[in-house]
Amino acid sequence: MYREQIKVLDCTIRDGGLINNHYFTDEFVRGVYKALSKSGIDYMEFGYRSSRELFPPEEFGAWKYCDDDKIREVIDGVESELKISIMVDAYRVKEQHFAPADESPVDMIRVATYVKYIDSAIELINKCRDLGYETTCNIMAISKEREPDLVESLKQLAKAPVDIVYVVDSFGALFCEQIEYLVKLYKEHLPGKTLGVHCHNNQQLAFSNTIEGIIHDANFVDGSLYGIGRGPGNCCLELLVGFLKNPKFNIKPILKVLQDYLIPMRKEIEWGYLIPYMITGILNEHPRAAIAKRKGPDKDKYAQFYEEISEALD
Amino acid sequence: MYREQIKVLDCTIRDGGLINNHYFTDEFVRGVYKALSKSGIDYMEFGYRSSRELFPPEEFGAWKYCDDDKIREVIDGVESELKISIMVDAYRVKEQHFAPADESPVDMIRVATYVKYIDSAIELINKCRDLGYETTCNIMAISKEREPDLVESLKQLAKAPVDIVYVVDSFGALFCEQIEYLVKLYKEHLPGKTLGVHCHNNQQLAFSNTIEGIIHDANFVDGSLYGIGRGPGNCCLELLVGFLKNPKFNIKPILKVLQDYLIPMRKEIEWGYLIPYMITGILNEHPRAAIAKRKGPDKDKYAQFYEEISEALD
Repeated sequence: MYREQIKVLDCTIRDGGLINNHYFTDEFVRGVYKALSKSGIDYMEFGYRSSRELFPPEEFGAWKYCDDDKIREVIDGVESELKISIMVDAYRVKEQHFAPADESPVDMIRVATYVKYIDSAIELINKCRDLGYETTCNIMAISKEREPDLVESLKQLAKAPVDIVYVVDSFGALFCEQIEYLVKLYKEHLPGKTLGVHCHNNQQLAFSNTIEGIIHDANFVDGSLYGIGRGPGNCCLELLVGFLKNPKFNIKPILKVLQDYLIPMRKEIEWGYLIPYMITGILNEHPRAAIAKRKGPDKDKYAQFYEEISEALD
Repeated sequence: MYREQIKVLDCTIRDGGLINNHYFTDEFVRGVYKALSKSGIDYMEFGYRSSRELFPPEEFGAWKYCDDDKIREVIDGVESELKISIMVDAYRVKEQHFAPADESPVDMIRVATYVKYIDSAIELINKCRDLGYETTCNIMAISKEREPDLVESLKQLAKAPVDIVYVVDSFGALFCEQIEYLVKLYKEHLPGKTLGVHCHNNQQLAFSNTIEGIIHDANFVDGSLYGIGRGPGNCCLELLVGFLKNPKFNIKPILKVLQDYLIPMRKEIEWGYLIPYMITGILNEHPRAAIAKRKGPDKDKYAQFYEEISEALD
């Protein structure tokens, strides 16, 4: 697939940080930054710009806050055209500071929201846009939303100064035909906006659903190295780069960072296709029960877990 | 997805046997047989009916030969409506014996072939059909075949007494649009035949490509428990059963056999999404170089492996 407009965003540090409370070493983050720079990836997401009042610094690593100075420290001296994004939860904004974009290493602010917080999201988008940032709106958990409510949000976003709106399959529950349906729905209600897709891998569909999004004109796609991310993780960046034929992409630095960092890391922290996440995916549920199950002695009692979850839904 | 005609074939023992020279214990094979019987799966493939002249018995386990008596011994006393299939390579037929179907526990013989051996495949299909077996033809490695040659084979098969013809993505190289193209091509040239899909998971596309096949009217789909199979393995049976809405399917016995057998087994023998298989997949190559690489000290030197393979292709 070659389409010049397609932009690839790597969310290794941001979504991966949800597994380890954002305690990645500077060496690792810098290593990823260097590799992505050499690979021609378009954006790298470093983490969240979270409130220290809501999330006390003694419990989280630096990438929960993504201070401009911290980002500068880690990327210092690396030759790169990689743009930098951070994510903010629209419903957890408190005292966080945002410098004007031209005084910050950050290029793009991605606003994550649920449908019910769309007004807060738009308020934050307006603020970030006024400061000169590129903006996205990532509407989460849409596999659980009622369509009229979702459409109402899209209509509000159509009038907002947001550059990109993402279809986010938070629960890894969607099949290709549902991705097609949603991307077309977004396109219908968001004339002139760029669309993105962010997929989770509960059912090993993150990559194929991302392709499905691309087929139906989504031009922003998220991936992460070896799929790292909370629970089942994301679309694998290496697969995306293998698929996209834009000659600016180079898979070799990605393969190198996989062997140097991600494979050893996978032995220490867990993510990927694991049966409890598959179960929450097929049942269209938040992975939190599966995450809890994986931390206990019954982590491989799948039949029991399936019964617990499906009984709770009956 | 609910379509009554869809039949699910489990190839755990057959394709999984390619990893360990078919040395599965009777206990495991019987455990799988019981679980699949309870889950409403349609067919279970036990292995190959291979020639003992070509493959000496001191090097392989029982499931390389699948003698009728051996199958009977393992399934004895289990209440089941599960049909039984075995596979035969069309180009490796020697002295193997096939009893008449009504004297055998086997219901279906699946004939694996390359395009160039299609005449041998049809000869074997004729023989098996005359003995009363259901038959399939699984044309392998089609991502490398020239289309006129493939079409020629399909035209021959259209006239043969074969029940089902499979689209087989041997190298895990195909994307959804290519699966769609091939299934439609098969449909055009095989009027009245049932189509099947057998996908490999090099690029985490085995499940989504199987769904793609189903969307375009393939009614025989292959899966294996936790995707077990040579190299990257197959479409996960548990995902298929989560997707298919026919109420005859029950996922719970499958989850139980995963936790009891497959998860412990995965610690002893290796299969699944691993970067060397991803690399052979994106390059549309046989996985043999990746399999060899995974057995040596450089098994995680991905960048080097990519260079070796892509240089050999230049």
